[in-house]
Amino acid sequence: MKKLTILGSTGSIGTQTLDVVANDPELYEIEALAAGGNVNLLVEQARRFRPKTVCLATKALADEATALLPPGTRVVYGEEGLVEVAASGDADTVVTAIMGSRGLNATLAAIESGKQIGLANKETLVTAGHLVMSQAARKGVSILPIDSEHSAIFQCLNGENRADIKRITLTASGGSFRDKTREQLVGVTVEQALNHPNWSMGAKITIDSATMANKGLEVIEAHWLFGVSYDQISVLIHPESIIHSYVEFVDNSVVAQLGMPDMRVPIQYALTYPDRRATPTEALDLAKIGKLHFREMDFHRYPCLRMAFESGRLGRSAPTVFNAANEVAVDRFLKGEIAFLDIERVIETVLEKHQVTDLPDVEAITAMDAWARREAGAV
Amino acid sequence: MKKLTILGSTGSIGTQTLDVVANDPELYEIEALAAGGNVNLLVEQARRFRPKTVCLATKALADEATALLPPGTRVVYGEEGLVEVAASGDADTVVTAIMGSRGLNATLAAIESGKQIGLANKETLVTAGHLVMSQAARKGVSILPIDSEHSAIFQCLNGENRADIKRITLTASGGSFRDKTREQLVGVTVEQALNHPNWSMGAKITIDSATMANKGLEVIEAHWLFGVSYDQISVLIHPESIIHSYVEFVDNSVVAQLGMPDMRVPIQYALTYPDRRATPTEALDLAKIGKLHFREMDFHRYPCLRMAFESGRLGRSAPTVFNAANEVAVDRFLKGEIAFLDIERVIETVLEKHQVTDLPDVEAITAMDAWARREAGAV
Repeated sequence: MKKLTILGSTGSIGTQTLDVVANDPELYEIEALAAGGNVNLLVEQARRFRPKTVCLATKALADEATALLPPGTRVVYGEEGLVEVAASGDADTVVTAIMGSRGLNATLAAIESGKQIGLANKETLVTAGHLVMSQAARKGVSILPIDSEHSAIFQCLNGENRADIKRITLTASGGSFRDKTREQLVGVTVEQALNHPNWSMGAKITIDSATMANKGLEVIEAHWLFGVSYDQISVLIHPESIIHSYVEFVDNSVVAQLGMPDMRVPIQYALTYPDRRATPTEALDLAKIGKLHFREMDFHRYPCLRMAFESGRLGRSAPTVFNAANEVAVDRFLKGEIAFLDIERVIETVLEKHQVTDLPDVEAITAMDAWARREAGAV
Repeated sequence: MKKLTILGSTGSIGTQTLDVVANDPELYEIEALAAGGNVNLLVEQARRFRPKTVCLATKALADEATALLPPGTRVVYGEEGLVEVAASGDADTVVTAIMGSRGLNATLAAIESGKQIGLANKETLVTAGHLVMSQAARKGVSILPIDSEHSAIFQCLNGENRADIKRITLTASGGSFRDKTREQLVGVTVEQALNHPNWSMGAKITIDSATMANKGLEVIEAHWLFGVSYDQISVLIHPESIIHSYVEFVDNSVVAQLGMPDMRVPIQYALTYPDRRATPTEALDLAKIGKLHFREMDFHRYPCLRMAFESGRLGRSAPTVFNAANEVAVDRFLKGEIAFLDIERVIETVLEKHQVTDLPDVEAITAMDAWARREAGAV
């Protein structure tokens, strides 16, 4: 029996995690569910999966939920509540599927209390990789990646010696605008940007796929997760999203992980690792697919990826600023405040203004994150 | 320091094994080299790699070599000599790269004396998989595959639980005639058949690639090496030979091994496993390759593969007969005695005439093998 707490249970990864749980109900027990503001869905999930505790973003939402929840369900709220559900209770694994950098404190609290992490919140490692990885090592906690690319790399490294890694390649579909030139990106709409060709995901990550900022965050995440330098990380455009990523070893042997695009496979792998169990997903049929295509990454076409690599190489506070500026810029694009191509302009402007500094603790990260958000909101 | 004996040192796999050794000379010591009739090359190899013992096919060849070899080199010959070099000496690994079913006794002798096997002789497992695998298990000996497909599967299974295998897929380039219909195969020449699109290999295996008998032998070999049923083994046409084979697990996650077609990678992996070391091979560049193609196997187009699956499923003596009939038929085709399409006709005729029986020991295998060869020579 695996006891799970899911932070971000009403989002895309959260709901798919509960699909995985529902498919193998005798294997899992839900300890706690945390959501933002989607009271109706959280209540529905709580009725079905019977968590001991639920968490919502505010007291008002928590009060609204209390009347609808099964009797005896404990309700907490806010950042404090989130940290508490992450760290307390009997869960052995905490799935961190909260969007953006809000997941950091809760993730650190879960690690501190010795819980294994199913990591779907990539911003955690981007902004605080140095803190998270050293704390996980100190507490003997495994960070199991849920992103399809990182799960792929993680699977390719099964039984291998990490010192034998020559290069890691993350594949990128190219996102919703992969066939458009930079000129054609002028004036694209939010609706067009949200139409991802392969993956059904949340709005923020779908926009990040279109700008390739998502792949940039994944590059920084891979650096921390697998202990590889930025020179050892490549990004390859692979429109079909069938090869989810691969590892090249020192002998030039390449091991890749493939599958139909379905997040339930990497989610389940993080929950059952090192075991594998059947999933209700479509099996890969390469003969039916017929062809796989690959083309070189174009850093001019995707400046957000270039800036992510630059931020990663600079290190220290740069990835935090990249991530915060990107979050605000995407939010502003989704609200219709700025154009699609302004996203990269906002990030670049904030990065240029920023003085790289050390971020020794969460307070320093939070302060730098807040500075970058203010700047990104004002560009 | 790894001490190697190479059976079949002057063939394609043998010479490439010595290339691997020459690339990392401080890592290896050559204990013994065995060849058939290529005295000049064996002498050249002995002068360079200084084995303690060499073996040739006959006394006459051995006498011819003795005068040319470095002083002190021991020379043996024949089946008896081959078995002796396989089993004796200080080698910790014996690379069995002898073509056809002649390698069986020597391989069994090497296993019996506790030597690890680098297996490039697939006929060994095809004709005597039941004896070889049980003897290897009893002696605690590893059978490390050198075939690119089996090395790929072996690498994909690193760190995995074999009970989690759902399916193994061996890729097939389709061989030299992959774009020809059955009608267009009438009257093709030996020279055309020897022109393999991706791999530079010996004549027998190149013809076997064109008939797909090679893939059939690999299917039977995979059954024994990885303990999977024939229903769990697929063959997929993949003209570029970049994905060397892959494993689908119960969760529908697929792990594949890729690389430029170069036998030195799987050869070295068998020698250095579980370590990896640099190879002087070309790195894979998927962006440069651009596209990978896949299409379903056509058992009507490739009846030799159909017969291999049927023989494997029948088991007992059937794979031995399939293999022996194929060896004779290919030999007769290479000598110009029969046409290309007669290869499958010869195998089918011998298989139809054959009464399936148990083969409890090498004597029974040898007798059945001899019967099939006589029949195949007379069709």
